[in-house]
Amino acid sequence: MSLNFRVVLVEPLYQGNVGSVARAMKNFGFSDLVLVNPCSLEGEARAMSSHARDVLEGATITSSIEDAVAGANLLIGTTGITGSKFDEHIRIPAHVPREMKELLEGYTGTIALLFGREDKGFTKDELCMMDMILTIPTSEIYPVMNLSHAVAVILYELSDVQAGETPLADPFDTRLLMEHLSQVLEDIDYPAHKKEKTELMLKRIFGRARLIPREVQTLRGVLRRIQRHLVSDKENLSDVYTKY
Amino acid sequence: MSLNFRVVLVEPLYQGNVGSVARAMKNFGFSDLVLVNPCSLEGEARAMSSHARDVLEGATITSSIEDAVAGANLLIGTTGITGSKFDEHIRIPAHVPREMKELLEGYTGTIALLFGREDKGFTKDELCMMDMILTIPTSEIYPVMNLSHAVAVILYELSDVQAGETPLADPFDTRLLMEHLSQVLEDIDYPAHKKEKTELMLKRIFGRARLIPREVQTLRGVLRRIQRHLVSDKENLSDVYTKY
Repeated sequence: MSLNFRVVLVEPLYQGNVGSVARAMKNFGFSDLVLVNPCSLEGEARAMSSHARDVLEGATITSSIEDAVAGANLLIGTTGITGSKFDEHIRIPAHVPREMKELLEGYTGTIALLFGREDKGFTKDELCMMDMILTIPTSEIYPVMNLSHAVAVILYELSDVQAGETPLADPFDTRLLMEHLSQVLEDIDYPAHKKEKTELMLKRIFGRARLIPREVQTLRGVLRRIQRHLVSDKENLSDVYTKY
Repeated sequence: MSLNFRVVLVEPLYQGNVGSVARAMKNFGFSDLVLVNPCSLEGEARAMSSHARDVLEGATITSSIEDAVAGANLLIGTTGITGSKFDEHIRIPAHVPREMKELLEGYTGTIALLFGREDKGFTKDELCMMDMILTIPTSEIYPVMNLSHAVAVILYELSDVQAGETPLADPFDTRLLMEHLSQVLEDIDYPAHKKEKTELMLKRIFGRARLIPREVQTLRGVLRRIQRHLVSDKENLSDVYTKY
């Protein structure tokens, strides 16, 4: 029973950064590195990884984020851009590394720490996949950190997190819960233009709450019961129409 | 009244690292960079500094550590090598970044954060200059961090330190105190082979205690009084010899 952290670099552009990330990981005792459609990795990546060549060469390469995060209980996306008015709800609430550490203490499971492209970060759709958003408090004058610096700071903070016995919910079950919620929103004719934002808000609430397996099952039970009552309401409604 | 942090790189070997350090500094709101006998700084340093070219180009270059730390109230040396049996006393006690932050809260003054060479760190004599030793907790398997990663982690931790009104002792006065202590050790015929270690221990105790100006003056008053009594003891001793 422990917390396993997986570092996922999404489409990294510079091989030197990938090597530097491998080194920072080994410095803090981490080794699970996944690269989604990375740049070519050659001599410079190896040189920057220094004595962490094993981490670099042991990295898994995938062609999609979905594959990269397979089996992870929580997806945590790191972004340097917060508080922007544009698509603000996607990035809020953003946790700082120390909060994140405290939120994870006492749990067991696999946490995927995702880092976006050096130039553009994550796309909107990618951000919507995250259970939590992590941001490093930086100067407003120059907030954009070097990729490997961001990894180093976050792993420094998470390197002494105290894992526990509480299991995080299975990612497959959590996904079913989110799909179920989406279905219920449709059942109740929730306004289409609000649906996506509300779903994201619910995802972030559950992410922040670090759901355990029993909670996911109970929530799904609640949703099923809601749905049953919705159907009977519709039938009652039909009755009403028939009657008059 | 505030805490000013000065980043001092001692004989950095790789210009890319110097540029990366400048970027990490600007990310966390710092700008006072001093380079002691640096490698040549050209295109790669500028490229790695990215939007922190102003910090890089505003760096002061000196030919000695003494010049680099001029005016600093405390000298904090960062080392990745701790707990080594060799010259252990020079590196102990080593504080972790969070402790260092807590130790500095409430003070006002200039703190020099010194970082050694990428390959060899600091010399023994350089380590003896430090008032405090700072180390980042890393994996035993691969403890040696990239220089700019170490700077990023430490500045991340120190970026929200709460300064206060308590002034740190003037570095000139602290130096006089240390010289005075050294003189007193000689006056009392302190064993020569222990003198250096004891002086270093006292320096580190005072560093950790973050002396304020009044304390330095009071300590010097105590030392003066000790010396006066030593002289009179010697005179008494002479008297004794004369008498018998």
